[in-house]
Amino acid sequence: MTINYASCRRGALAALLMALLSVQAISQEREIKTAVLYAPKLIAEMKQLHSAALSSDYAYIQLAHLCNNIGPRLSGSSQAQQAVQYVAAEMRRLGLDVRLEKVMVPHWVRGSETAELVQFVGQAPNTTQKIVLTALGGSVETPAEGLTTEVVVVDSFDQLASLGREKVAGKIVLFNARFDKQMAAQGYALDAYRLAVAYRGAGPSAAARLGAVASLVRSVGGADYRLPHTGGFGYAGDAPRIPAAAVTTEDADLIAYLAAQGPVRLHLTLTPRTLPDTESYNVIADLKGSEHPEQVIIVSGHLDSWDLGTGALDDGAGVAIAMQTAQLIKRLGLRPKRTIRVIAWMNEENGLMGGRMYAESHKAEIANHIAAIESDLGAGHPVGFSAHINAKGFEMLQPIATMLESYGAGIIRQSQNAEGADISPLDAAGVPTLAPIQDHRTYFNYHHTAADTLDKIVPGELAENAALVAVLAYAIANLQEALPR
Amino acid sequence: MTINYASCRRGALAALLMALLSVQAISQEREIKTAVLYAPKLIAEMKQLHSAALSSDYAYIQLAHLCNNIGPRLSGSSQAQQAVQYVAAEMRRLGLDVRLEKVMVPHWVRGSETAELVQFVGQAPNTTQKIVLTALGGSVETPAEGLTTEVVVVDSFDQLASLGREKVAGKIVLFNARFDKQMAAQGYALDAYRLAVAYRGAGPSAAARLGAVASLVRSVGGADYRLPHTGGFGYAGDAPRIPAAAVTTEDADLIAYLAAQGPVRLHLTLTPRTLPDTESYNVIADLKGSEHPEQVIIVSGHLDSWDLGTGALDDGAGVAIAMQTAQLIKRLGLRPKRTIRVIAWMNEENGLMGGRMYAESHKAEIANHIAAIESDLGAGHPVGFSAHINAKGFEMLQPIATMLESYGAGIIRQSQNAEGADISPLDAAGVPTLAPIQDHRTYFNYHHTAADTLDKIVPGELAENAALVAVLAYAIANLQEALPR
Repeated sequence: MTINYASCRRGALAALLMALLSVQAISQEREIKTAVLYAPKLIAEMKQLHSAALSSDYAYIQLAHLCNNIGPRLSGSSQAQQAVQYVAAEMRRLGLDVRLEKVMVPHWVRGSETAELVQFVGQAPNTTQKIVLTALGGSVETPAEGLTTEVVVVDSFDQLASLGREKVAGKIVLFNARFDKQMAAQGYALDAYRLAVAYRGAGPSAAARLGAVASLVRSVGGADYRLPHTGGFGYAGDAPRIPAAAVTTEDADLIAYLAAQGPVRLHLTLTPRTLPDTESYNVIADLKGSEHPEQVIIVSGHLDSWDLGTGALDDGAGVAIAMQTAQLIKRLGLRPKRTIRVIAWMNEENGLMGGRMYAESHKAEIANHIAAIESDLGAGHPVGFSAHINAKGFEMLQPIATMLESYGAGIIRQSQNAEGADISPLDAAGVPTLAPIQDHRTYFNYHHTAADTLDKIVPGELAENAALVAVLAYAIANLQEALPR
Repeated sequence: MTINYASCRRGALAALLMALLSVQAISQEREIKTAVLYAPKLIAEMKQLHSAALSSDYAYIQLAHLCNNIGPRLSGSSQAQQAVQYVAAEMRRLGLDVRLEKVMVPHWVRGSETAELVQFVGQAPNTTQKIVLTALGGSVETPAEGLTTEVVVVDSFDQLASLGREKVAGKIVLFNARFDKQMAAQGYALDAYRLAVAYRGAGPSAAARLGAVASLVRSVGGADYRLPHTGGFGYAGDAPRIPAAAVTTEDADLIAYLAAQGPVRLHLTLTPRTLPDTESYNVIADLKGSEHPEQVIIVSGHLDSWDLGTGALDDGAGVAIAMQTAQLIKRLGLRPKRTIRVIAWMNEENGLMGGRMYAESHKAEIANHIAAIESDLGAGHPVGFSAHINAKGFEMLQPIATMLESYGAGIIRQSQNAEGADISPLDAAGVPTLAPIQDHRTYFNYHHTAADTLDKIVPGELAENAALVAVLAYAIANLQEALPR
């Protein structure tokens, strides 16, 4: 910015005065609005909640139990059922009104998963090279003895298409698109993820349409520790169902390097099984509102995780943060005017059946759902919150951001999409959705891997998230006027 | 630092002048010494070598072949033998005088390695928790069906001793000492490693002396990506040989967390095999000296690696750097006065048989070994070099450091120990040893893991190391006067 000081000294002074007056005017106007919407008692209680959250280890203790004592919580597993019972019991212990709402979920079980390069240029006699990979959730199996064929490496769907059936049929396709680490490091990790995950989601059927016998994807994530990232995908109706797995970034590089020198043949064995759908549950725990018990603010995370790690970041943290909201309000003897509903969603990872079922079965009461909050991007330091809400609602939330400023969490962002996968069906039905804006620069290093474990949680940052979500939920529950649709 | 300016203004000025004169005097003296030891032609050739190295991808191409086309190179493996043949052929192609010197090496082969927690507090019905681990090199096997028993967690040898036989016998001991990541981040990674690796080395026999049936060590390294670090150890003569493995830091944390709540039982299966010792080789490639061919400067790295990764950092890089030294000298048409001997050592990782055998079989010529250089700490940006040498020799090396200053590599450090494992037997026999001072802050994140792969090498930094080592070797080979013992 360049300013011509010589020609505008006086003008600048006048403009500065105007600006100061204008800021003062806005500030006064805001104070009036704040006072109308947010009673002084509410502001005081929000501060009390925030402070209590920062000095509490409740969320961390809950998360440690979910991760360490129960373990991975893939939908349909015994651990997922145990986690449902645990969260329900804990919410009952706090005095909430708890019910389990039935959800039929997929029950996919990982088997053995091995791969070795059995032919490549320069190979030492009688050797193979191990390829580290993991089946994608929902993959069908290879023959028990595995399959052996050549690998074709492509960087994009366009490149695959340009090869055509002739060069792809009977082979394994490796989609080698890179997760953009620089994008992630600059705070756009979710964007980097969205760009790369297309190959995990649509790759298997795209390869199968050209006759490929299996599909591999370069792991969608930022780690360089020979760590494969699993995840969900869908088989398209018009393509054969072929086995699908994610190789580590290192193994993708290795295969690409060798394939540039000559034919590379891989022996691939994946033995997952898809069992009949299983009965599971969303855990719903209500802290009833004193004035408008029928009006609901959801605060939530998803209880299921992938099976490789223990789902500390994805999304035990979200569940623990939601649990802490209720625990803090109870412990401080506060009572919200509207109902705060803690939900531990089931089956976010491979079906979204919990979120879908809820929106369906609560269709008649959707109009009374004032807002839905979900935390599902780890537990890194939050700098504020994001809301998919209309302009009036966004304006009404401003004082919460102002209150959070002194905690370094004063950013409020109006987004264009649902603020969480589980709450996206509610969002589609018009319910405002909100989420903390977390530091997720390293989130996709661990997400969907065996390394998503408790040590990745910084207790103080988890508490910061619990503080933010508790303040957000409690404030919305006590606004003088309900948030608009 | 506080200076009393008022009382020492004039004195300071005088002191400053004295200091400047003194610096000038030292500088003049150095120039004279440099001119005597380092002919202007030599200085010019050193600069020529450095510059050529920085613009060459030879070392990287060699390393890529070793890692990607050949793969892991554990002593006794077919890949290690292939690597011997490859390096020998490449050195012959460059016109060096190559011979293979026989070394008998251990031949240990990793088997399956699995573990699950089968009992712990809060366990969901019919579930176990997977523990990620890897056998330590040389470990004996468990029964084929595995063994199942309680885990005892200790943080130190003292704590183990305080438990005594009664609480240890029949159990698995987990040594849970932490690798100090802060120490590593501050540039003292090798020190952090030395402190923690004691438990890998001596843990199995310490546990066995108290009747333990297996020994686990928290992985000695800085990664937090569920990545186990293997490594060597020795069974003591006075203790039973029990299976030994390294668990990831995450799994060590998990076991410690659960063991603090109640008994933790582990099912452990390790099926490695120790085969008869195998014939292998040090690759020795001489670039004969023009004036003193009998005087030898060794430039080296070790060709064997662990079996989990492809040994890019440990120590393919060291071999590639040594190969590049010869390649550059040949390519530039230079001829050293003394012989530069490229050595690709065999069996550094689990026996050091290559280094030992060389010192033994070349005992008669040790007096003619002027210096031995080894690079075995990755390929990070070098800031200079370190030498285990006497005061006179150290002084003689100063001009090399001065020449390297403009490349950011002007540090010269006089050390108290041998500068590389393979060259330590030579060091013990009085040969000065040298090594580049590499950035190894993240080296132990990858060292001895499946993630020690080519992508961990920054090509430009590998070239910087090749430049430094080439300059160092060539300078020492051409000094007017041989380095003293």
